[in-house]
Amino acid sequence: MTRPPYVPHIAALPHLVPFVGPEALERARGRAFKARLGANESSFGPSPNAVAAMRAAADDNWKYSDPENFELRTALAAFHGVSIDNIVVGEGIDGLLGLTCMMFLAPGDGVVTSNGSYPTFNFHVQAHGGRLTLVAMHDDREDLAALRAAAGRETAKLLYVSNPNNPMGTWWPAADIAQLIAGIPNGTLLILDEAYVDTAPPGTAPPLDVSNTQVIRYRTFSKAYGLAGARIGYAIGHAGVIATFEKVRNHYGINRVGQTGALAALKDQVYLATAVQRIEAARRRIADAARGNGLKPIVSAANFVTIDCGRDAAFARRLLDEMLARDVFIRKPSAAGLDRCIRVSAGADADLDVFAAALPDALAAADKHA
Amino acid sequence: MTRPPYVPHIAALPHLVPFVGPEALERARGRAFKARLGANESSFGPSPNAVAAMRAAADDNWKYSDPENFELRTALAAFHGVSIDNIVVGEGIDGLLGLTCMMFLAPGDGVVTSNGSYPTFNFHVQAHGGRLTLVAMHDDREDLAALRAAAGRETAKLLYVSNPNNPMGTWWPAADIAQLIAGIPNGTLLILDEAYVDTAPPGTAPPLDVSNTQVIRYRTFSKAYGLAGARIGYAIGHAGVIATFEKVRNHYGINRVGQTGALAALKDQVYLATAVQRIEAARRRIADAARGNGLKPIVSAANFVTIDCGRDAAFARRLLDEMLARDVFIRKPSAAGLDRCIRVSAGADADLDVFAAALPDALAAADKHA
Repeated sequence: MTRPPYVPHIAALPHLVPFVGPEALERARGRAFKARLGANESSFGPSPNAVAAMRAAADDNWKYSDPENFELRTALAAFHGVSIDNIVVGEGIDGLLGLTCMMFLAPGDGVVTSNGSYPTFNFHVQAHGGRLTLVAMHDDREDLAALRAAAGRETAKLLYVSNPNNPMGTWWPAADIAQLIAGIPNGTLLILDEAYVDTAPPGTAPPLDVSNTQVIRYRTFSKAYGLAGARIGYAIGHAGVIATFEKVRNHYGINRVGQTGALAALKDQVYLATAVQRIEAARRRIADAARGNGLKPIVSAANFVTIDCGRDAAFARRLLDEMLARDVFIRKPSAAGLDRCIRVSAGADADLDVFAAALPDALAAADKHA
Repeated sequence: MTRPPYVPHIAALPHLVPFVGPEALERARGRAFKARLGANESSFGPSPNAVAAMRAAADDNWKYSDPENFELRTALAAFHGVSIDNIVVGEGIDGLLGLTCMMFLAPGDGVVTSNGSYPTFNFHVQAHGGRLTLVAMHDDREDLAALRAAAGRETAKLLYVSNPNNPMGTWWPAADIAQLIAGIPNGTLLILDEAYVDTAPPGTAPPLDVSNTQVIRYRTFSKAYGLAGARIGYAIGHAGVIATFEKVRNHYGINRVGQTGALAALKDQVYLATAVQRIEAARRRIADAARGNGLKPIVSAANFVTIDCGRDAAFARRLLDEMLARDVFIRKPSAAGLDRCIRVSAGADADLDVFAAALPDALAAADKHA
C-alpha cells in the first residue's frame, strides 16, 4: 500500500463541508423538521408548468441531455438580450463557481471576497489552492470600495461580490455595482453572484455588458424560480470567457429533467412575478415576527430575512439551537460581526406559522440559558 | 478592457468538445434521427419504478437534494458490501473523472491511458494540465502489460483502464485486472472505469478491495440502468480517498429527481436483469446485421457493438456519414487502428429495425464513393 499521489494543496486541505444539509440534521436528531426555512429554497415551488414538464420528462430520462444546452441557452439569450455564446449552463451556481476557480486559479493566486459571504465560493477557492483575503462588511453590506482596494493590493485574480448578499440580504443599487465594475483592477476578474437578484427591487442589477471580459454574472433557477433540486444555474459573460468554460466543464453534466423544468419555469414569467410577490409577503411576515419579539430584521432583497438578535454570537447560536430543537430548520451567519444574527428563508404561510409559533419560546429558552 | 487572467495551461488549450451530441447533429441537419444508437444510452429505459419515482419527485424539486446523498450511498454500500464511507456520488462518471484529475494532477503530471479510449477522460486530463501518454491497444483490447509499463516509465500519477472498454466493447476477465492491480507502480493511482460492467459476463469485475488506496472504481446509472439523463455515477474506493472527494466536489451538485430515480433503479434488480438480457439480444441482432452485410462484429461485453468494416478509416467514415444521412445516429472510433470501425448502441427492436434497413444501402453508397 502506498499514499495516493494527491496534489499538495489538496492533501493539505482540512475536511470541510460548506453546509450541512437539513437531511443530515434530521438523521442526527432522529426527527423531521416541521418547517424547512434554512437553505433559501422556495417552498412556493416552481411554476406548475415546470412541474408538469419535469413529470413528462421522466419518461425520456434514458437519454443524455443535449450537451450544448441549446434550447435553454437560446431562451436565456433571448430573455437577457444577449447571444447564446454569452451563456453557459452549469450544475447550479456552485458548479460554475468551481469551474471559474479552475479557469483562473493556480495555487497561491489571490482571491478577494467579503468575510462571511458565500462559504461555498471560499470552499472552491481553497480546493484550487487560492489565497483568500477576506474584507469586513460595513453596516452588514459588502464594502465595495474596500473590496476593490483589496483586489488591487493583493493583485487578486478573482473578486467575488454577491448582490444581493447572502447571508445578510443586503444589496447595492445598480449604479454602485456599475462603479465597482468600472474600477476593477487590471488582471482581476469580477465574479458577480446574482443568485438572489430576481427578488430584488428593480434597478439592482446593472445592465449586462458582454463586451467586458472582466465580469461574469451568475444566475440560478434555485431561488425565486423554485427549482433548487434541479441544479440549473448559468453564467453570462464575454463570449471568449464563456468559450473557455467549454474547455473545462462537464459537457454531459446537466440532468435532462432539471433542464426541461428550468426552460418551462423561464417561460412562465407570470408565475415568477407571483412567486416574487409571495416571497416579499413572506419577508414582511418574518420581519413582523422578529419585531414582535423584540428582534431587528435586516431589510432584505433576497428570499430570506436575516435577523439581528441584538446580542452576541453565543446568544444567536443558542437561539438557533432552540429553534432547531423546536423542529424549525433555519441557519445563521458565522463570521465575526454577522454572527449576532439568524437567517430565515421566505417560505409558505404554513412554514412561517411554525416559525412564528416557535420563536417566543425559543427566545425565552435561549435567554434562560444565558 | 484587459485579458482575463486564465491559468496558463487553460489559456493554451484548444477548444475541444469530447462528443458532439445527437441534438446538435439534428439541428445542423434540420431533421430528427429515426434511431438513436450513438451515445450508448439504453432505449429500453430504466425500471418503471424509477420512472414512477422520478415523476413523483418532480413535486419536491424545490428542495435541494441531500448533499450527503445518504440514502443512495447507503443502498449502494449495502449492494456492494462496503461502507457508505467508500462511496461518493457524482454527476455521472464524467464528473467524478474531472474531480479525480483535480485531486491528483498538477500541470505536467503524467497520465497513461489507451490510445482511442474514453476521450472525456483525456479532456479532463488536459483541462488540468496533465501530460498524456497514449498506449496502443492490442487486438482491439487495452494492453494491460504495456499500460502498466508506461505508468512506471512515465511516473504517472494516474492510469486509466476501462473494463469493458469503450469504444471497442472488449474486456478482460477479473483475474487479469487483479494482476494489473497487484502491479500498479508506487505513486500511481488506477482509475478503473467500469461504466459497462453491468452488461459484462460474470467474473469481469474483480472483487472490491476498499483497503487499497491505489484503485478507484467507477460505476454509473447511465448504461444498463437506463438513466443517462439523470447524471448519477459513483466511485468506490478507500475511505481516505473517498473523503478527499469531499474536499473538492460540488456538494449540492446532484439533482434530486435523478438521485431518486437511481435509488429506485438500484432496488429493482429484477428489471435490471431483464434489461441486460434485452441488451444481450440487441447485441446479437447488431452482430447478425453486420455479418449479414459482410462486416465483422467485435464480440462485446458492453451495451454496444463495434463493427470492423474491414477496410480503412476513410471507408468507415463514409459508412458512418451514409448512416447519419439515413437518419441513424451512430458513432465511430477515431484513433488510428480503431478507426476502421463503427459503433452501434444496443437499442430496442424498433431502433435496430431502422439500423438494419439502412445498413445495406449505406454500405453500397459508401462503396460507390470510394
